[in-house]
Amino acid sequence: MHRSGIFAALALSAAVATPVVAQLDVEEQIETRQSAFTFASWNMGKIKAQAVDGTVAYNEQQMLAAANAIASVANSGLGSLFGPGTAMDKNDNTRLKPEFFDKPDKAREVAIGFAQAANKLQEIAANGGSKADLAAQFSEVGKSCKACHDEFRAE
Amino acid sequence: MHRSGIFAALALSAAVATPVVAQLDVEEQIETRQSAFTFASWNMGKIKAQAVDGTVAYNEQQMLAAANAIASVANSGLGSLFGPGTAMDKNDNTRLKPEFFDKPDKAREVAIGFAQAANKLQEIAANGGSKADLAAQFSEVGKSCKACHDEFRAE
Ligand code: HEC
Ligand code: HEC
Repeated sequence: MHRSGIFAALALSAAVATPVVAQLDVEEQIETRQSAFTFASWNMGKIKAQAVDGTVAYNEQQMLAAANAIASVANSGLGSLFGPGTAMDKNDNTRLKPEFFDKPDKAREVAIGFAQAANKLQEIAANGGSKADLAAQFSEVGKSCKACHDEFRAE
Repeated sequence: MHRSGIFAALALSAAVATPVVAQLDVEEQIETRQSAFTFASWNMGKIKAQAVDGTVAYNEQQMLAAANAIASVANSGLGSLFGPGTAMDKNDNTRLKPEFFDKPDKAREVAIGFAQAANKLQEIAANGGSKADLAAQFSEVGKSCKACHDEFRAE
């Protein structure tokens, strides 16, 4: 499963545009996207601990599993969990800024940035990349998370 | 990323035994495992909708992305999110039965069953398996979820 960044970006655009499942209700969309990000974040934490901070022993197999998990979130069609009416102007339990719906081009850009960075992380891990390479790409993925949060997630 | 079932089972046992990340606190473990299952469940829903019920148009690429996501949860070392003190006898926000800690062999068995079923689903999706094959294996994965819930998850 070595998708190129471009392929992933296309897959993502398709996923944004095409329903992948019967549309979830607003509460379910919010809970599911928060779950997807929490799962991604846990896996980012593993890479940080093992490849960046060195607080946990480095284990290539665990790094690959973590990279697969992050990429699977990035390629899962998250766009369908950002439906109309799911921002914080209409719900108490979300931090999605309403601006999200006014800036579809920016939303697509940060989503594609995440997918490209996550797919590259997965490629590095799948091809026996060094700890340093993994750490460097971890940082790129982290920037792609932050790019979206800065724009669309409230404090 | 075509792991055999056995390899996945070993990876999973290793993940249960070895820390993958600085240990999360009890609340974080509960929230993270619930997130992982919610993310898996959303992706199961896509396969159900497209390959089983036919309520959404079948899209091979989306089925592969969904199977990758489910497998990535199964291979993520969930065991580390079931630490001591995380069951419902000590926490209000979880449905994990305390029996989980008295039955490590059963816990390993259902976890390995999930990993094997999810990896086979991924293999079928990655190798252009038919809709019928995907639907059949979806049912096996569903049984592996249920095997664990029947044993360890409260109503
Ligand atoms: C496309 C935009 C986008 C990308 C990319 C993105 N996030 Fe987020 N993230 C959000 C938004 C929006 C929320 C708030 C969701 C809500 O409250 O409904 C959020 C919420 C979260 C949360 C809190 C979840 C919860 O339980 O409330 C975490 C943790 C998180 N993101 C981590 C990450 C990590 C780690 C990455 C990259 C690996 C990432 N995010 C990539 C937009 C994004
Ligand atoms: C190894 C055991 C195990 C396996 C395998 C398993 N589950 Fe679960 N699941 C649990 C437990 C235990 C809980 C309760 C977690 C908690 O409340 O802390 C749970 C909770 C859930 C939840 C509710 C999450 C929430 O937000 O509270 C969903 C949905 C779910 N599982 C779906 C699935 C699906 C779908 C699969 C298979 C693809 C699956 N589970 C496989 C043990 C398992």
